[in-house]
Amino acid sequence: MACCEFPAVAEGCDGAFTVDSSRITFGRGCLAEVGERAAALGMRRVALFSDVDVAGLAVFAVARDSLLAAGLDVVGYTDVHVEPTDVSFADAARFAQEAQPDGYVSLGGGSVIDTCKAANLFASYPADLLTYVNAPIGEAKPIPGPLKPHIACPTTAGTGSEVTGIAIFDLLSLAAKTGIASHALRPTEALVDPDCTATLPAGVVAAAGLDVLSHALESYTARPYVHRPAPARPSLRPMSQGANPWSDLGCREALRVLGQNLETAVHDAADSAAREQMMWAATLAGIAFGNAGVHAPHGMAYAVAGLVRDFHPSGYPPGEPLVPHGMSVIVNAPAVFRFTAQVSPQRHLEAARLLGADADDADLDDAGEVLAAELIRIMRAVHIPNGLSGVGYTESDITALTEGAFPQQRLLQNAPREMTKPVLAELFRNALRYW
Amino acid sequence: MACCEFPAVAEGCDGAFTVDSSRITFGRGCLAEVGERAAALGMRRVALFSDVDVAGLAVFAVARDSLLAAGLDVVGYTDVHVEPTDVSFADAARFAQEAQPDGYVSLGGGSVIDTCKAANLFASYPADLLTYVNAPIGEAKPIPGPLKPHIACPTTAGTGSEVTGIAIFDLLSLAAKTGIASHALRPTEALVDPDCTATLPAGVVAAAGLDVLSHALESYTARPYVHRPAPARPSLRPMSQGANPWSDLGCREALRVLGQNLETAVHDAADSAAREQMMWAATLAGIAFGNAGVHAPHGMAYAVAGLVRDFHPSGYPPGEPLVPHGMSVIVNAPAVFRFTAQVSPQRHLEAARLLGADADDADLDDAGEVLAAELIRIMRAVHIPNGLSGVGYTESDITALTEGAFPQQRLLQNAPREMTKPVLAELFRNALRYW
Ligand SMILES: NC(=O)c1ccc[n+]([C@@H]2O[C@H](COP(=O)([O-])OP(=O)(O)OC[C@H]3O[C@@H](n4cnc5c(N)ncnc54)[C@H](O)[C@@H]3O)[C@@H](O)[C@H]2O)c1
Ligand SMILES: NC(=O)c1ccc[n+]([C@@H]2O[C@H](COP(=O)([O-])OP(=O)(O)OC[C@H]3O[C@@H](n4cnc5c(N)ncnc54)[C@H](O)[C@@H]3O)[C@@H](O)[C@H]2O)c1
Repeated sequence: MACCEFPAVAEGCDGAFTVDSSRITFGRGCLAEVGERAAALGMRRVALFSDVDVAGLAVFAVARDSLLAAGLDVVGYTDVHVEPTDVSFADAARFAQEAQPDGYVSLGGGSVIDTCKAANLFASYPADLLTYVNAPIGEAKPIPGPLKPHIACPTTAGTGSEVTGIAIFDLLSLAAKTGIASHALRPTEALVDPDCTATLPAGVVAAAGLDVLSHALESYTARPYVHRPAPARPSLRPMSQGANPWSDLGCREALRVLGQNLETAVHDAADSAAREQMMWAATLAGIAFGNAGVHAPHGMAYAVAGLVRDFHPSGYPPGEPLVPHGMSVIVNAPAVFRFTAQVSPQRHLEAARLLGADADDADLDDAGEVLAAELIRIMRAVHIPNGLSGVGYTESDITALTEGAFPQQRLLQNAPREMTKPVLAELFRNALRYW
Repeated sequence: MACCEFPAVAEGCDGAFTVDSSRITFGRGCLAEVGERAAALGMRRVALFSDVDVAGLAVFAVARDSLLAAGLDVVGYTDVHVEPTDVSFADAARFAQEAQPDGYVSLGGGSVIDTCKAANLFASYPADLLTYVNAPIGEAKPIPGPLKPHIACPTTAGTGSEVTGIAIFDLLSLAAKTGIASHALRPTEALVDPDCTATLPAGVVAAAGLDVLSHALESYTARPYVHRPAPARPSLRPMSQGANPWSDLGCREALRVLGQNLETAVHDAADSAAREQMMWAATLAGIAFGNAGVHAPHGMAYAVAGLVRDFHPSGYPPGEPLVPHGMSVIVNAPAVFRFTAQVSPQRHLEAARLLGADADDADLDDAGEVLAAELIRIMRAVHIPNGLSGVGYTESDITALTEGAFPQQRLLQNAPREMTKPVLAELFRNALRYW
């Protein structure tokens, strides 16, 4: 028997799971602690990362002033590209190599935090961009040692990047997203101040919030850790180790909190309590997926975002087309969970119930449908487009989407059912339109 | 509003909480990972701490062989005193100062892990024992810097010491327990292998299990973090920061798991699933109280253990009298929770329910009584003595117990109601006999 309502450890599989997390401070106004915390980590010359829009907000001044008040030198980098690319990562790395800070503070959404992780990595261990990128797209070389201290301060209630060892970017030449995953990338500390989200446009609250939802749902339904082949050495146990009793706890609470607060947080910017709760859900889901891993909806999203042609969502920088990360994930979710429910119908039903669905009398055979219906209801309530067709794809894109998603093996192998190319194609087809 | 069903931040109080934890690996057989993990932390010469009984168990050979197989030098220290004292801490410190290991592995219950923390501290920063001890008993000087890496491997399902920054000992001259509390003491990693508990005598499973129960219950009912005065600087936010949304999650799950498994784990050593679940509950409760803090039952326990005269519990080393830590805690618990329930009756009822009490129709006014009755039921079921009288105290000891407990201000101030001397005396009186 494995622990806590988990199945037995399968032949040749892993009997243990490993939990890691950054130091986290959570609460309104805690951003003002950043100066003393940076000094306590030994920083003297701090690179403060942000994007141009966040750099114009009052919270940016709060962070900068706190760092200055602690007697630190501050060098700003505010050129982060929203939805970063290989080109924008390289630019940030060049900045850091020249500025040679002894510590980093990132203030922004996942785009900013991920870019800061990459800059820290490439300034510490200069290398070709693909050196550390996940296989098969990159060489997946291990990061040689520890990075400089990094305090991550999220301003969206979304990615959980402040507590994960992951940095995602769009590899323009392949028109697909990919990333770097390593314990070394995890920020030293996270300062999670819900007040930072007061200025978020509704469209960003919705997309980022559905990213949170999918982190929790994917981690909760991922292949259990006891069904993943045991690593040759403990240090090779992956961060995407599958669902485990620890991640389950965070997932369930994140789903519950999110089910009660997402719609209000999107539609009523003045309801600061709802936005605070969304921030808490994002933190919990980040801790959970950072130790369990996501699966097919995220793996498929990398292609959905990478192949974008002409979608321009409200709330995001105008100009280049983009499918915001959370939106690119959630458009796949109902199709995926209809498919995965048969493996763990209880978990799928429980998730629907935590989100707020009335599933008490539901039949286990209907678990996928019940969960999909609840997801679709939420998507509509927060104005997410109608599946892949809503973000500009048609039947004729299925092959390209499948080819784009299939290399995301780090994620796809964490799914509870095998994700072959025909399966992916079918899931993308089923994700074209939901209502 | 504070986060997640918490009350508003009170005037002058703290609006944020900080969460810290060791890297944790959990699962059957994971003790065999210790060698590679020690090497990965840069250890070459490892001090392996244990007590003489644990050193005779098969698990000790597993740990030692794993360290040797990883090519490490191992120096053993197996003289840990069960329920450590200032004398035994000093002996362990002398050993470490002479052996000068570059890393530590502790294998045992809380007595072993705490002693190893102290040895690491005093070998790294030699000083008089009271230098770092909590005020008012000690000087409470901050630990000057990081310690050597320490991998803690618990063999009881109890203290959670493997994930806390606390080390407890009996100050013989005062006949009272006290301790050192600092982030720096927290082990670098915890390797939690439920197989290590297979050999535990029933009496130790019971006492350690009730320590777990009280960690969860005290953290869940502690003064909420939003009612604790804000620290002058963020680095001064204490580990005993009060109940918070993060610790609540671990507490609730620990209580639920414990309610379902404690009795079986005590009475049926062959039910390895129940013992595994107890280990998981201990880990969760350790994470929770390490970030929230315990309160009156623990503060009072330090006097109950320190003033022991002639109690000799089964399952513990014969010879010197002792009240095992968990037992010294739980004998106070029903009296304390009867007293604290009026502050947060919902939480007290919810805790009773999670433990298994049928409290659905209970009146809020009866919350203290319902919880106390459930605690007493559990104590009887696992053969805990009948309150303070069961471990050898009488009415005439109340004053000494009160004087012994009152200096434990770090813990008492974390209680939800004021713990004056008259209150403590009354609680001790009410704890004399429960059935
Ligand atoms: N590292 C991880 O673990 C992880 C996990 C999920 C997603 N991601 C990545 O994170 C990125 C998405 O991050 P995101 O969803 O947080 O959004 P984002 O960082 O891309 O920001 C979205 C938009 O919101 C604006 N914005 C951010 N905070 C604001 C505020 N407080 N007020 C007003 N405007 C604000 C930004 O300027 C931007 O225009 C994607 O690249 C995705 O792949 C990373
Ligand atoms: N640091 C913390 O956060 C913290 C928290 C709570 C308690 N404590 C302290 O921890 C100590 C109590 O620790 P404990 O309850 O874990 O017990 P313990 O370490 O005192 O051990 C109790 C007895 O069980 C034996 N034992 C341990 N593991 C065994 C095994 N696997 N098989 C057979 N016998 C075994 C020991 O040899 C000993 O005789 C107290 O000193 C208490 O104050 C510390």
